[in-house]
Amino acid sequence: MTISRGRPRASGPPQSGLGTEEDILRAAAKLFCTVGYGSTSTHAIAREAGLRQSSMYHYFTAKHEILLVLLLGTLAPSIEIAKTLLRSTEPAAVRLWALCLLDVRLLASGPVNLGSLYLLPELGDPNLAEFHMRRAELRDAYRELIAQCDGIRESEASRVADMVLALVESVIMLRRAESNLDIADLAPRIADAALRILDLSPEVVHAARTRAAVLAETLSEPR
Amino acid sequence: MTISRGRPRASGPPQSGLGTEEDILRAAAKLFCTVGYGSTSTHAIAREAGLRQSSMYHYFTAKHEILLVLLLGTLAPSIEIAKTLLRSTEPAAVRLWALCLLDVRLLASGPVNLGSLYLLPELGDPNLAEFHMRRAELRDAYRELIAQCDGIRESEASRVADMVLALVESVIMLRRAESNLDIADLAPRIADAALRILDLSPEVVHAARTRAAVLAETLSEPR
Repeated sequence: MTISRGRPRASGPPQSGLGTEEDILRAAAKLFCTVGYGSTSTHAIAREAGLRQSSMYHYFTAKHEILLVLLLGTLAPSIEIAKTLLRSTEPAAVRLWALCLLDVRLLASGPVNLGSLYLLPELGDPNLAEFHMRRAELRDAYRELIAQCDGIRESEASRVADMVLALVESVIMLRRAESNLDIADLAPRIADAALRILDLSPEVVHAARTRAAVLAETLSEPR
Repeated sequence: MTISRGRPRASGPPQSGLGTEEDILRAAAKLFCTVGYGSTSTHAIAREAGLRQSSMYHYFTAKHEILLVLLLGTLAPSIEIAKTLLRSTEPAAVRLWALCLLDVRLLASGPVNLGSLYLLPELGDPNLAEFHMRRAELRDAYRELIAQCDGIRESEASRVADMVLALVESVIMLRRAESNLDIADLAPRIADAALRILDLSPEVVHAARTRAAVLAETLSEPR
């Protein structure tokens, strides 16, 4: 997201200092997650970002383009962490615990609940195919880590990955239902539950949690 | 849903023999789950049901009233099963396994994926408060069964219930993503995983599954 390809503004509030494209994305995120995607016009996004609609078209020509960038932005950090973890030599259960914890935290971060965009009925739109490809990439990383855990058959790993992802993404619905969600408490619970689904012994889960908590802090530091 | 309070039809296709109200609900269910809730007009629902819009207003005066009836219809059978299970003297783990299995099956049943209506951003509408109350009732039944399982602290039961419900409702997203979902295979997997989250021993999970499978068949028979 460059600042250089900016255009003169109409007027208006934001000017976050982050550049026009970022202002548009923030405005759209806020409106999509409060007013709703279907009910938000590109005109309303431009106004919220303090731009003329004609200036916004310099950055995005359709609403679904903005949605796609927002959706991809929710996945990118998790995919990066997953790739780092796939290369690590830590035990698979440790790496899976760390991935669950960090993924829950990412979904819970930011001023608005961007994960709720995953639930939009509009997500079948072929224009959003890249999101589904990238999400499949993240799911594959989960599947691969799960397949590397003791006692998991390769043929089972895919269904187990669906269940683990459902647990991780449950934070989206919880965040919608509870305004004061305690993520510091919830994230490790979800990571524990994910490992239990794999039918690992309580000792393995406990050992993985202790070691993974340290690993997770290393990974979540700014790189 | 009575047949008696019918009005003359405009013309048109459905006439399922189930009564006009049921025809409207089926038409709306189909449109909400394919075209989307926001993009479906009451006019389109009337047309799909083979009615004049003015005739439809005899049954429903606003689109959110139809949505509410559909939402409540997805919960009612699960709440009934949950209440029966709360009164049963079977071990709690057995009853919880049976509830998960039957709830997944109910969410997977029917010609359209009605559970996907739970994901609508419009669900914050105060007109839908009754749905949230009834859903809280179902969640409380899960919480109570979970609290009765061995080794679960009362203070933990609520968070565990959220995770178990997230697993059960993951069938909604899976059904959206996979057109040929094998529910006979998936439902017991989800019920197993739910019990594992509770940190019950593999022996308890195995015993509960065996006994609950029989119990579930009794409950899912027509009453």
